[in-house]
Amino acid sequence: MPGTIELERLRLVLVATRNPLNLGAAARAMSNFGFSRLRVVNPYEPAFREARSAVGAARVLAAAEEYKSVAEAVADCMLVVGTTANQRRETRHPLRRLEGGARLIRKELAAGPVALLFGSEKTGLSNRDLSHCHWLLHIPACEGHRSMNLGQAVAVCLYELVRNAKAAFRQEKMQLAAASQVERLTAALFDALRASGYLKRHAGPGAEEKTRRLVHRLRLEAADAEVWLGMLRQILWKMRQ
Amino acid sequence: MPGTIELERLRLVLVATRNPLNLGAAARAMSNFGFSRLRVVNPYEPAFREARSAVGAARVLAAAEEYKSVAEAVADCMLVVGTTANQRRETRHPLRRLEGGARLIRKELAAGPVALLFGSEKTGLSNRDLSHCHWLLHIPACEGHRSMNLGQAVAVCLYELVRNAKAAFRQEKMQLAAASQVERLTAALFDALRASGYLKRHAGPGAEEKTRRLVHRLRLEAADAEVWLGMLRQILWKMRQ
Repeated sequence: MPGTIELERLRLVLVATRNPLNLGAAARAMSNFGFSRLRVVNPYEPAFREARSAVGAARVLAAAEEYKSVAEAVADCMLVVGTTANQRRETRHPLRRLEGGARLIRKELAAGPVALLFGSEKTGLSNRDLSHCHWLLHIPACEGHRSMNLGQAVAVCLYELVRNAKAAFRQEKMQLAAASQVERLTAALFDALRASGYLKRHAGPGAEEKTRRLVHRLRLEAADAEVWLGMLRQILWKMRQ
Repeated sequence: MPGTIELERLRLVLVATRNPLNLGAAARAMSNFGFSRLRVVNPYEPAFREARSAVGAARVLAAAEEYKSVAEAVADCMLVVGTTANQRRETRHPLRRLEGGARLIRKELAAGPVALLFGSEKTGLSNRDLSHCHWLLHIPACEGHRSMNLGQAVAVCLYELVRNAKAAFRQEKMQLAAASQVERLTAALFDALRASGYLKRHAGPGAEEKTRRLVHRLRLEAADAEVWLGMLRQILWKMRQ
């Protein structure tokens, strides 16, 4: 296996997976391609228990970490990528084809942890899940047959990540804000918007998700994120006086 | 999907497959990536019947052709390629890694039909099956975890066949904020920082320039810049009350 890709920095995050076979298949593909950090968010519990006790992918599944929310599962990640079968224009996320997207992920892995999210078999990632993502990865598939089997989609994505990884270009990278830092900033901004009355004028469902996506799109450096947080807190303090 | 590969000329040949889920998964991956010609050699009959009646990949499975021997299943092909998880030195077949092998298969497809063989889940292709093959295709996987799930191996191979370097990396084009827009945003932020008392605590020469650089580093899209400006103005209005 190629040496330049930081395999252990990838967190494969399965959100609300229903089928134990898919959990097992995802873990097996991870083993095949050298990845080890599996995280599950609100899996269907019997499925998760069944998959854990299955043969073949024991090590990866046994070490799988369980989370109650996407926010917690990606908290240590500098880049959060969602996968989707379809173009989802309504969320305004940049959509990248697998090949180019994988190249970007390899670069980011040189700098720090990256989360790759897969949604449930039926519905994929929700808009709320997607609000944690910086951009979306898309496996090009045929019109009319876009929906891939979850285990196969995982296998294809991981294959593309390690394929030709030696060619991956190690780049001097700025330190990006971790997801937990972005989350604190989102919370502070949301508080400020509420306090100012902005939310009353721009109400509507998904206001929190919209705010989170807005902050995520900034792709803040860690140092800048701290500056913005300091500013927002001061502004908030003033508004509450 | 790329136009240069003759998808209908590929015959995907599953030899002695046991598990209906794998038959279904292989057919689904074929649909996903635009292939249609599935051939099965001596499948486990109940599994084949069950898979045919499953949802999702109905068209490819319904059109699947059944053969009694590998010889018959590959009779019309100009190139016959076996897949293997391991190096099988004893057969003295040339072994090609997936990426280079797929390139050769694409070339041959321009000339005529090509068969791609997958063996059974337990034992893979037998030496007898392999004797029909011109060479072997090998998905690079980790030492100790070479054995892939059949449906996943099919998906990865077909993905590599249609993956098209030319089509790679299409990024959703975004309209970046013009400098004048960034300047309005900087001014609004600076006003908010002054009103909140932030500038008093973080005084010093060049505070305005620092703020401008901070905003410039955001590399905002035009639409997002408007949203931020609206938020800041509302916050500013609130602080001045």
